[in-house]
Amino acid sequence: VTDFTRTKSLFQLPENLVYLDGNSLGPLPRAAVASVSEMMRDEWGDMLIAGWNNAGWIDQPARLGDRIGTLIGAPSGTVMVGDTLSIKVYQALASALEINAERKIILSDTGNFPSDLYMAEGLIKSLDKGYRLKLCEPEAVADCLTEDIAVLLLTEVDYRTGRLHHMKTLTEKAHEKGILTIWDLAHSAGALPVNVSAAEADFAVGCTYKYLNSGPGGPAFIYLAPRLANKARPALPGWLGHAQPFAFDPEYRPAPGIERMRVGTPPIIQLAALEASLDIWDLVDMNDVRTKSSELSDLFIELVEAGCPDLKLASPRDSRQRGSQVSFHFEHGYAAMRALIDRGVVGDFRAPDVMRFGFTPLYIDAEDVNKAASIIAEVMTKRLWDNAEYLVQSPVT
Amino acid sequence: VTDFTRTKSLFQLPENLVYLDGNSLGPLPRAAVASVSEMMRDEWGDMLIAGWNNAGWIDQPARLGDRIGTLIGAPSGTVMVGDTLSIKVYQALASALEINAERKIILSDTGNFPSDLYMAEGLIKSLDKGYRLKLCEPEAVADCLTEDIAVLLLTEVDYRTGRLHHMKTLTEKAHEKGILTIWDLAHSAGALPVNVSAAEADFAVGCTYKYLNSGPGGPAFIYLAPRLANKARPALPGWLGHAQPFAFDPEYRPAPGIERMRVGTPPIIQLAALEASLDIWDLVDMNDVRTKSSELSDLFIELVEAGCPDLKLASPRDSRQRGSQVSFHFEHGYAAMRALIDRGVVGDFRAPDVMRFGFTPLYIDAEDVNKAASIIAEVMTKRLWDNAEYLVQSPVT
Repeated sequence: VTDFTRTKSLFQLPENLVYLDGNSLGPLPRAAVASVSEMMRDEWGDMLIAGWNNAGWIDQPARLGDRIGTLIGAPSGTVMVGDTLSIKVYQALASALEINAERKIILSDTGNFPSDLYMAEGLIKSLDKGYRLKLCEPEAVADCLTEDIAVLLLTEVDYRTGRLHHMKTLTEKAHEKGILTIWDLAHSAGALPVNVSAAEADFAVGCTYKYLNSGPGGPAFIYLAPRLANKARPALPGWLGHAQPFAFDPEYRPAPGIERMRVGTPPIIQLAALEASLDIWDLVDMNDVRTKSSELSDLFIELVEAGCPDLKLASPRDSRQRGSQVSFHFEHGYAAMRALIDRGVVGDFRAPDVMRFGFTPLYIDAEDVNKAASIIAEVMTKRLWDNAEYLVQSPVT
Repeated sequence: VTDFTRTKSLFQLPENLVYLDGNSLGPLPRAAVASVSEMMRDEWGDMLIAGWNNAGWIDQPARLGDRIGTLIGAPSGTVMVGDTLSIKVYQALASALEINAERKIILSDTGNFPSDLYMAEGLIKSLDKGYRLKLCEPEAVADCLTEDIAVLLLTEVDYRTGRLHHMKTLTEKAHEKGILTIWDLAHSAGALPVNVSAAEADFAVGCTYKYLNSGPGGPAFIYLAPRLANKARPALPGWLGHAQPFAFDPEYRPAPGIERMRVGTPPIIQLAALEASLDIWDLVDMNDVRTKSSELSDLFIELVEAGCPDLKLASPRDSRQRGSQVSFHFEHGYAAMRALIDRGVVGDFRAPDVMRFGFTPLYIDAEDVNKAASIIAEVMTKRLWDNAEYLVQSPVT
């Protein structure tokens, strides 16, 4: 059984703060500071260029990819770390459209994160061949799967509501119609058990700075099903995805398998932080995370609904139907969230009216949930949000 | 006048090592370790998600872009930091091809870094509209500029030989034929005075981990001429390049100017290291760097040619015609470089037979050059490279 008291002790968490925003940026694993300093001094500083071989930097994106793979049901050699999630979405989409070359539609849902849709729009515009992006309501995805669709691009857990798609069922239905699938695991990896192999997902992508706690701007990852590994042409063919990067061959030849999804030089300092954060995951059973996060979020819903009649649940009530977050609609959600943050309860706001709270058992416990709920009740009943200062939006929320 | 003794003291340099490979990976600025630790503890650790606003993370790619701009003659608001150089090459190429939509040829030279060519090939393959990549010899570029060429993609300083293109002249000639220009400054930024404005370059891209000393995997940058800023469609339209990222608009609308070249979440830990490394550049006049690097590299050529008749100069003899590196051809260059590295002289090898040495006055002085040259002479005259261990190639050089 996972010892969550122990995992909590491994994070730097400001006192008097209940941090319910690990779904946006995970907190600092204490060990990461020393890991990064040591990497900088002992590897970059002392080894200099030799660090690529002697410190293993060159293989680190694959090595850390394998460690992330254990959290998402991906076998060794099928996950690569690097770039940002948007870039990885683009690579997956471009590859999928080429493999399913006869079809012209990318299907996604209206709950998908806008950046995923932007990358689809950008690719479609560049290709300029009559491709189009079709969006359906999240609940209607299964009914929208028709044989003219090339690829289904979905985020498993809705960033606003936390609504969870059923990856295995939708993938199966998609495959029945010859549709390839790309699963964005931004709000899944580290939040709940994921098994891309069992679901037979074709591609999966995700980020590491949310539930995986790699720090601001931590790199993304991409999974490529082994059956597609040598079929998928990397649309962004950087030299580190070349079969022989150091031959400096003027012609691109993709490396075998997932290595081809590498692009340029990997961010070794960020990777040192990611490595430290993944060490914590070695202590954790994802099923325990799921059980605990369901308990915490159920408790939170119960307490908030009891204390704050103005907040309307935006997330599925059944914890099996949602990820690891709980959202509420409230007209003055932006101001209310600012009032909460000033009182030590950190969630975030997502336009137009969603107040979002993430439950991350690695460092959030029932005491935190009780404390947060009572502060929320105070803010709501006393209308502490109704304050000119809180009503003006700042650029990032 | 720049005090290079002072700048040298600001780097961690292993004792008994002459590091002539700053053109591949710059050394560690001592202050970067504390900067990164402080950013991790005081910003990520204490501010958590609020760091995006309160620590200014969200604007850091533009702020550091402006600081790099001062080193390459780019006005404020025209340079953006992020991603890798390959990604920035792709963005520039895709934008240029769209602006010059009637033309189908990308012109580059055989001396360009392969990854730039791979990105061009990858884009051409994706577009699948009869585009092609034409390569000419570096010396013949001016003669290859014809009116069917959409874009000229060149690296100003050849990564193998150090041969320097004349940016202003070639850009002028290109513009006369209606050709857009993309200048890769990987081996220029921080190596010699560059002025993208005076040269009227259309796009420029570069990396920060070489002469700018930002550490392994430090981010890239992109410059976009103000006259094109609102014409260039970002082919990789990530949410942070959106006019209003936090509106979570399902439709992409590019931000004005250079902001549109942002893609996903910037690597904040790497940026903290970059910021510390740029502080050193505030103490430096690039003209002094150029004068000193020419002196050092002239001295190196003189000493090596005197002591090592088997090494044939691969770089232009006239320092005005080369960047900040000196290369020699030698059939057993790989083995010879390994022998040198074992004896504390670090350069690097570039296939098929190039031994490359970079001269970076911020931390390399005449004493280093003398020491390096005498060790090279010893390795060559005693054939210390002729050793089975040195003759097998490792993956990264």
